[in-house]
Amino acid sequence: MLSKSHIKLITSLKQKKYRLQHGFFVVEGVKTIKELLQSKLALHALYTVESFNIDAKSEILISEAELKRISFLKTPNKALAIFKIPEEKPIAQNGLIIALDAIRDPGNLGTIIRLCDWFGVKDLVCSKETVDCFNPKVIQATMGSVTRVNISYVDLELFLNETSLPIYGAFMEGETVYNKQLPEKGVLVMGNEANGVSEAIEALINEKISIPRFGDLQATESLNVATATAILLSEFRRSLL
Amino acid sequence: MLSKSHIKLITSLKQKKYRLQHGFFVVEGVKTIKELLQSKLALHALYTVESFNIDAKSEILISEAELKRISFLKTPNKALAIFKIPEEKPIAQNGLIIALDAIRDPGNLGTIIRLCDWFGVKDLVCSKETVDCFNPKVIQATMGSVTRVNISYVDLELFLNETSLPIYGAFMEGETVYNKQLPEKGVLVMGNEANGVSEAIEALINEKISIPRFGDLQATESLNVATATAILLSEFRRSLL
Repeated sequence: MLSKSHIKLITSLKQKKYRLQHGFFVVEGVKTIKELLQSKLALHALYTVESFNIDAKSEILISEAELKRISFLKTPNKALAIFKIPEEKPIAQNGLIIALDAIRDPGNLGTIIRLCDWFGVKDLVCSKETVDCFNPKVIQATMGSVTRVNISYVDLELFLNETSLPIYGAFMEGETVYNKQLPEKGVLVMGNEANGVSEAIEALINEKISIPRFGDLQATESLNVATATAILLSEFRRSLL
Repeated sequence: MLSKSHIKLITSLKQKKYRLQHGFFVVEGVKTIKELLQSKLALHALYTVESFNIDAKSEILISEAELKRISFLKTPNKALAIFKIPEEKPIAQNGLIIALDAIRDPGNLGTIIRLCDWFGVKDLVCSKETVDCFNPKVIQATMGSVTRVNISYVDLELFLNETSLPIYGAFMEGETVYNKQLPEKGVLVMGNEANGVSEAIEALINEKISIPRFGDLQATESLNVATATAILLSEFRRSLL
């Protein structure tokens, strides 16, 4: 059974300010919830139409109609869980770090988190203007990778000023990435969807790199930031082999 | 002014069967419409809140409220146009071809079309089960690239059986793509989001390739098909340099 206070809490978690206030975020879908239950994340409550056979205290059986009422999805998927937002861990500065300068689209951030997981990037550093990684659309797009990548929201200018790692950035006019010797440890900065890397951050970049365009002059002006991140991450990793 | 018959036609074009019946598709947003007006596509009608200063016959000035009524978007963007679906051109078989085996997600197809445009892939071949490239969500994700890539819907098994080009396919258990010598001309097959390449198509693949995972054992099981296509296309192209 679903009480009014449950509904109110869940609905509020769509908004970042209430996620911060309560320290909770929402995950939907049996597969992703099961993946998160196996992580170090703490479960606060699980609303499900079929029992998961876990600690009964946190599990609340509900009807499909009730799930529809609390779900953020058009087609709800059997279960919705509330987890505690974990504490931010220190940034290791001991490998390849992806830094995001004001990425706004939840799908792009979700894809980039999943790419970090695949390519063994432990730390993802986001400017304060970057979309919140506990936004339900981001969580939906990460498929559980959010638990395996250490995501920090920082003053990006300060972070880049203080790091001793070499700083790479993706720029249209950068040097062809295919010709570069890429290091095992460094920071790769990816810029905003519409405006690219901001001026203040650009001033801190050591090496501008780009993905060459092979299409003719009429071809698309740019790649989506998530697909560009995929290609650049692959380039950093392939040089390790 | 917007007549009832206009509204009925536009609304019907959300569905593939009516797009095929009328031979029209919908494009939204001033930037994308302007890009398409410069292509070889034939404009059928343009509904806009501000004049584009083009051939008056096809342009219909409407109010923001009217646009809201016909738009497929949550936040309509000043203009909506109906273009004629172009005739399919023959597949050139003279370069790198991407072949899609039942890609279902419109965002993925849109991203892949844009990638083909960027990397100079002239022909995109889709199985009949692949989402329609004139689906409004695909059009929205391609950002105009749909006019520069020749997209054909074919019996994929038949096409692969008949081509003389070498056929590559993306498989989890394939050979590391980083170690492969990749040709300038060939077909790269990408499989369905959930099930990968189907059995019948798998039997026709000459070389199975994969993108190595660098994350630890708990890392994500797979990459999204659009990001995997980005990385593999980049690998095919970098070997040309």
